[in-house]
Amino acid sequence: MPAAMREGGRLVVVGGVAAGMSAASRARRLRPDVEIVVLEKGQDVSYGACETPYYIAGVIDARERLIRYDAEFFRRERKIDVRLGAEAVELRPGRKSVASRAEGAQEVLDYDALVLATGAVPVRLPLPGTDLPGVLFLRTLSDADAIKRAIDGGGVERVAILGAGYIGLEMAEAFSARGVVVTVLELLPSVLSTYDPDVSEIVERELLDQGVILRKETRVEGFEPASGIDRVGYVLANGQRIPTDAVLVSAGVKPATALAESAGIELGATGAVRVDARQVTSDPSVLAAGDCCEALHVVTGKPAWVPLGTTANKQGRIAGENAVGGNAKFGGIAGTNTTKIFGLEVAQTGLSSAAARNAGLPVASVKIAGYSRSHPYPGGSPITVKLIFDAGSGRVLGAQMVGREGAAKRIDTVATAIHARMSVADLAGVDMSYAPPFAPVWDPVLIAANQAVKRVGRSPGSV
Amino acid sequence: MPAAMREGGRLVVVGGVAAGMSAASRARRLRPDVEIVVLEKGQDVSYGACETPYYIAGVIDARERLIRYDAEFFRRERKIDVRLGAEAVELRPGRKSVASRAEGAQEVLDYDALVLATGAVPVRLPLPGTDLPGVLFLRTLSDADAIKRAIDGGGVERVAILGAGYIGLEMAEAFSARGVVVTVLELLPSVLSTYDPDVSEIVERELLDQGVILRKETRVEGFEPASGIDRVGYVLANGQRIPTDAVLVSAGVKPATALAESAGIELGATGAVRVDARQVTSDPSVLAAGDCCEALHVVTGKPAWVPLGTTANKQGRIAGENAVGGNAKFGGIAGTNTTKIFGLEVAQTGLSSAAARNAGLPVASVKIAGYSRSHPYPGGSPITVKLIFDAGSGRVLGAQMVGREGAAKRIDTVATAIHARMSVADLAGVDMSYAPPFAPVWDPVLIAANQAVKRVGRSPGSV
Repeated sequence: MPAAMREGGRLVVVGGVAAGMSAASRARRLRPDVEIVVLEKGQDVSYGACETPYYIAGVIDARERLIRYDAEFFRRERKIDVRLGAEAVELRPGRKSVASRAEGAQEVLDYDALVLATGAVPVRLPLPGTDLPGVLFLRTLSDADAIKRAIDGGGVERVAILGAGYIGLEMAEAFSARGVVVTVLELLPSVLSTYDPDVSEIVERELLDQGVILRKETRVEGFEPASGIDRVGYVLANGQRIPTDAVLVSAGVKPATALAESAGIELGATGAVRVDARQVTSDPSVLAAGDCCEALHVVTGKPAWVPLGTTANKQGRIAGENAVGGNAKFGGIAGTNTTKIFGLEVAQTGLSSAAARNAGLPVASVKIAGYSRSHPYPGGSPITVKLIFDAGSGRVLGAQMVGREGAAKRIDTVATAIHARMSVADLAGVDMSYAPPFAPVWDPVLIAANQAVKRVGRSPGSV
Repeated sequence: MPAAMREGGRLVVVGGVAAGMSAASRARRLRPDVEIVVLEKGQDVSYGACETPYYIAGVIDARERLIRYDAEFFRRERKIDVRLGAEAVELRPGRKSVASRAEGAQEVLDYDALVLATGAVPVRLPLPGTDLPGVLFLRTLSDADAIKRAIDGGGVERVAILGAGYIGLEMAEAFSARGVVVTVLELLPSVLSTYDPDVSEIVERELLDQGVILRKETRVEGFEPASGIDRVGYVLANGQRIPTDAVLVSAGVKPATALAESAGIELGATGAVRVDARQVTSDPSVLAAGDCCEALHVVTGKPAWVPLGTTANKQGRIAGENAVGGNAKFGGIAGTNTTKIFGLEVAQTGLSSAAARNAGLPVASVKIAGYSRSHPYPGGSPITVKLIFDAGSGRVLGAQMVGREGAAKRIDTVATAIHARMSVADLAGVDMSYAPPFAPVWDPVLIAANQAVKRVGRSPGSV
């Protein structure tokens, strides 16, 4: 843990999106006297990275709406010295200094405490043609601007999306909304690899129903230019040459750890920066928060790397507090996440069946078809709930839900049960709300929990 | 606990709606050999009582849709001897017999075990004119038929609703949907008396916005006929004579305990039938389930009477299982409930501030305004979350939520936390789902929990 910050000391935050600006703001609230510098290599701070697909789709109509507070706001209202276009290039924990480069000029800043909030970067596949114009990535707001410009320019009638994770499928919807014909290429046999295949197949049907061309078990081998122009025109995959006007590579992200590594800050087994519950790294004056670092997974009790905006915000606050002498602890993650894929709400918490097995747990699961409203009430739709639990103790390990309404936030009920280390019997005993417009008298979560109760103590497996 | 049911023994269930048919069905599943008789004094079994306002409103268009399974289904498919129009008139636990009257004829049935599922009945105010035609109640499907006929008949242009609880306000919406001008008369200074006034005032604004005439602190003194016809024409209230074409009395319900009382079965302090966790009454061969009996409240640890369909279904299953020799336990209630009032979702779990104070707890609360979606994402709306907690320990005691979307089922997150005896700090640590279409990065529940954390250990009170 860093020493209590001295009067008028300096906090440097590297990275100014979710975790970084949360850290800076929290530190400022607690310590009006401290100097706070944020080094952000991009041109925007505090923007909604998760909103960028909706901005590209046109659902969010104005770019300004993605920026909750701009750099000027932080400078003026919070007295935070936000430096845009400033990249931290060398961190020397021994000297407590960081070198920053902006517009070619380099400056060395001493610090009393430093928060790493460098985020994650897209995995760039080492494939021929990756550098061709028209091969796009989506991570930053500038990336979103580039994709939107490409669509607005009118030359994109077909897009190939590499990778069927959340970003890939959200962008499949976004491109479709803009009238672009979408082909999704996925290496694995299922979309959404963190889900179990018996749940993700519901998403696959929705993609097909919405006109998306889905090619699974497809290995992309490279990209070729269109004839006569220096721009991507083909994806090479499974020995075929698939014509396209643009490519979006959404083959996952990895933690941005170069600065930490060069400074000798320890990484964990996940490859992300190792931190304790106070977000402190192996150097007591360097903290980390957000997508660049690990978090304790409450199901496995081990560090995990699940880069999500909610976690970034929470960890940022804790890092900011502790950087200026506080003693806050992060309670860990359950890996809860959700998204909208065309008409479906898709949500997950805890471990999938596969992840639980990999963690060495005796896993059992049930999958039930519930309903979003009382059956007589019009407008309802099915909700699939898969509940994953310890076959011996009945402890809830995870859940996956898919439906046209009522799945995205219903997952929080199971997330809460996971944090509380509830068994499926405990979950089945929860007094959940009921009214015809919002749920059946037996909520889908209760149906799943009741089914699971019958299986506890029997051999592991799924029904 | 009843003795293990003998081979070919007889179970009699009194009452055939939610709890009764759940009990009978559960018993049948476990014991194909047992004779099961259901005495239902009405003409319908297993109907959705909570759906009746939507049937009256026309939202649910066909009466058949309210009846999930009819008596013939239970007779044919589940070999349950359902007797409609059969009223249990005398219970003799000493002889293990119950007398039933149907169409004037009386029959005495011996039983090995009996389940009381007599439900609740509307409170009938002892007011002059209560028996006038046009003074209506809503409890059974037959009651709903009568109200629907009255509206369909065309003579109801104005209705006066006595009591601003869930049924009163759901019916205010139903009558409005049918073009009837609604006046709601409430004795207390706020609608929805189980909610704290700073939350229910949001509902009051919605009622006024929707054209409902709301008269609070209004004591109804009686009813008078319209001039020249034997039908209600006026409500007398606060010394005024309010003209109306119909009256709906929704002044609460009380447990239907006459049969139990006459048989010497003990009632609890709430006035409902006292049961243990196995749903067994003071007589070891008589069980009770649903609106006629109490349940353990998980917050106070004391018996409470909160008549709700979810509880009736759960208790019915347990009573049915134990009546035929099982040993299931009911885990108690958190008092979770929700409804739709015009455009609002209204939801509650645990204790209100007032109820917590009455229970002698050192209560504190916070009330925050969150949002249903990420702010940049279109179509979102505010959600108010009031979180009630123990000022000393931080234990979550209750929550109330109101909003145009996302309130009804979000309450289950807090209900789960209550069952798990979480503190507000525990709740603030839950990894909740986030995606722009469904929640802000700080879920309203997390915002409330974070605010509450700051207040724990300080003096009781609200902010």
